[in-house]
Amino acid sequence: MIYLTRRERFCAAHRIFRKEWSDEVNQRVFGKCSNPNWHGHNYILWVTVKGEPSEERGFVMNINVLKRIILDNVINKIDHKNINLEVDFMNERIATTENLAISIWNELNPFIEKEGASLYCVKIEETENNSIEYYGEKD
Amino acid sequence: MIYLTRRERFCAAHRIFRKEWSDEVNQRVFGKCSNPNWHGHNYILWVTVKGEPSEERGFVMNINVLKRIILDNVINKIDHKNINLEVDFMNERIATTENLAISIWNELNPFIEKEGASLYCVKIEETENNSIEYYGEKD
Amino acid sequence: MIYLTRRERFCAAHRIFRKEWSDEVNQRVFGKCSNPNWHGHNYILWVTVKGEPSEERGFVMNINVLKRIILDNVINKIDHKNINLEVDFMNERIATTENLAISIWNELNPFIEKEGASLYCVKIEETENNSIEYYGEKD
Amino acid sequence: MIYLTRRERFCAAHRIFRKEWSDEVNQRVFGKCSNPNWHGHNYILWVTVKGEPSEERGFVMNINVLKRIILDNVINKIDHKNINLEVDFMNERIATTENLAISIWNELNPFIEKEGASLYCVKIEETENNSIEYYGEKD
Amino acid sequence: MIYLTRRERFCAAHRIFRKEWSDEVNQRVFGKCSNPNWHGHNYILWVTVKGEPSEERGFVMNINVLKRIILDNVINKIDHKNINLEVDFMNERIATTENLAISIWNELNPFIEKEGASLYCVKIEETENNSIEYYGEKD
Amino acid sequence: MIYLTRRERFCAAHRIFRKEWSDEVNQRVFGKCSNPNWHGHNYILWVTVKGEPSEERGFVMNINVLKRIILDNVINKIDHKNINLEVDFMNERIATTENLAISIWNELNPFIEKEGASLYCVKIEETENNSIEYYGEKD
Repeated sequence: MIYLTRRERFCAAHRIFRKEWSDEVNQRVFGKCSNPNWHGHNYILWVTVKGEPSEERGFVMNINVLKRIILDNVINKIDHKNINLEVDFMNERIATTENLAISIWNELNPFIEKEGASLYCVKIEETENNSIEYYGEKD
Repeated sequence: MIYLTRRERFCAAHRIFRKEWSDEVNQRVFGKCSNPNWHGHNYILWVTVKGEPSEERGFVMNINVLKRIILDNVINKIDHKNINLEVDFMNERIATTENLAISIWNELNPFIEKEGASLYCVKIEETENNSIEYYGEKD
Repeated sequence: MIYLTRRERFCAAHRIFRKEWSDEVNQRVFGKCSNPNWHGHNYILWVTVKGEPSEERGFVMNINVLKRIILDNVINKIDHKNINLEVDFMNERIATTENLAISIWNELNPFIEKEGASLYCVKIEETENNSIEYYGEKD
Repeated sequence: MIYLTRRERFCAAHRIFRKEWSDEVNQRVFGKCSNPNWHGHNYILWVTVKGEPSEERGFVMNINVLKRIILDNVINKIDHKNINLEVDFMNERIATTENLAISIWNELNPFIEKEGASLYCVKIEETENNSIEYYGEKD
Repeated sequence: MIYLTRRERFCAAHRIFRKEWSDEVNQRVFGKCSNPNWHGHNYILWVTVKGEPSEERGFVMNINVLKRIILDNVINKIDHKNINLEVDFMNERIATTENLAISIWNELNPFIEKEGASLYCVKIEETENNSIEYYGEKD
Repeated sequence: MIYLTRRERFCAAHRIFRKEWSDEVNQRVFGKCSNPNWHGHNYILWVTVKGEPSEERGFVMNINVLKRIILDNVINKIDHKNINLEVDFMNERIATTENLAISIWNELNPFIEKEGASLYCVKIEETENNSIEYYGEKD
């Protein structure tokens, strides 16, 4: 089994808050991340797929196909966008990196399976000190 | 002459646009950076001061003093904020990294002079591929 | 299950040696790392916890709480210190990165459990070429 | 159990192609990576071994021994070389990073076992966006 | 005056040698870099332009225009190519990073002047330890 | 004129203090950097030389010669050492990064001149947030 990882990046605005709560409660629970005027990040995304390298081609999956799947289904929908307002796959979810990783997994998974590989890990770095990994439900 | 550089970071939302222009014109000129719903970045800031290291202490300027000046006058005003709406020193200026570098220079300069050192360069990295340097008006 | 990682850094002096051995024997076994006059590193520490993101808040654990636990129990005790002479949780242990990772795990584990999360991995980079990971005894 | 990782680097030329196929077919399947005039990379290699740290010495394996094994058996055979033409352990294999990881695993494994440790992972970064991990056949 | 830097990357094969010299002489002068079977690198290119930020738009030069100039005139001609055999602007020149920087400067300069900005620096990193900067003939 | 930069690294212990002062005064002036039990860093050193690339060889200076000069005159004297106690070229100087940069310049300069190139800059990164540059006395 071989694990293949593709890195992509996106810049986006977000705010961590529950709409049922007042700004004061959100501020108490989520701190400066709940700023009602938004803030943003340069997110780094690593998508890892696993599989047996094909005898004929020597790779798990064509990395350009993987790149294309990530661009079409994630980056082009989220880059230079507001995660809370404009990203369909984050609708109604609190815009934490945890939820972002789960939603990106769900977006990518069917397309990667169609290619005969298996999605293994979605990792997102929000800042150079904070990151999240999600390995799917079976984990 | 010795050059001393301190790195700090901030996360902020912004939008590049001229308020006199329609969203369509802004979109044509500034592209996806003019998204009316904002986007954001992890900005990296390098502040370089120059001076002679003191005979007694062996440094140009106490790096903790430099750090404190940057935190008090820049980072605490811009981190987790909206650059267009909430940062006083960017008032009425287009929120490009160029203007940000000039404004940060102007904020820091009097405090660094008070310490007997000389501000040499403000560098800002907006993404890993794009960065700006400003060396003041004398340049 | 989601994995959340926080990065922190510390600068410290150390020496790899067994006190029962002469400097010559230590030099033969541990090489230049056993220099009796010490040397030091900028260590990078990654602490990974795992858990289910809460429905209400969308995160595994408040990252600021995790940061505070790491600063209080590790960084403030080891940063700008001599690992062999001044760090209580390394008492009587050879100051290898392996032992450092195990000791830091033991320091952090009870505080992370108290928060309802589970410590998953302690990773330490000693130089850009050398690093250690520890996943606890169950591994 | 402790995981110890050593990073090494090598620069090499390669071409991804099947010799049974024409340049046109190779170009269609492998894209610009099949350029008949070669291209190249700064590869980064991480080798992870696992084991119990020895009571006496506090480490899983002397990192200088691990470094020496990697230099002698991999780096000195591949650095500043053409992977397709000059690297014996890649003979007859398509020069993908997947196959490179498997071949490097096979080269290193006997030497690491001789040291009483266990090879855990071979990771290779081909570009800052593309990387491969291999954990051996048991995985 | 503001300095704006764009980073781009390319992967290429090359060989450092003088065709008038035998392989033995090339090997003596240029070492392993003269391997007749080629080797390669992930080169990183930083292009810095300088100018006054426009009052109207707040930038020195549209970074997407700068990116397009670099892609069209450099990256698309050199990425995944053999620098000695396939890159027109390196014809007849020894394939050192020094010569590469001068040639890239000459390729880019007319296009950047046409945009009303001024090319300031071409920096190339060949490996993480070796890099070259060129500031043009006036320097 | 071309600028060529070589990066090298060293790990060392140090303490910032004036021996004429008590520990209390040193603590007040230099803070935790004056810890009498030492601390340490992974220092990164960049040495930049300038010159015209030779017509015959296409480089400013053979990078392996530059590397050798840096290893022989700096790295081998300071790596895994105590800067205050064991590094001859830092004798009697306060162990700040400023003084280190000046001393390393003085060590390297005669050897680089002998090679027909000109030392341009010594840059040292002490931590990822703090660095120093020195361009010689003529600056």
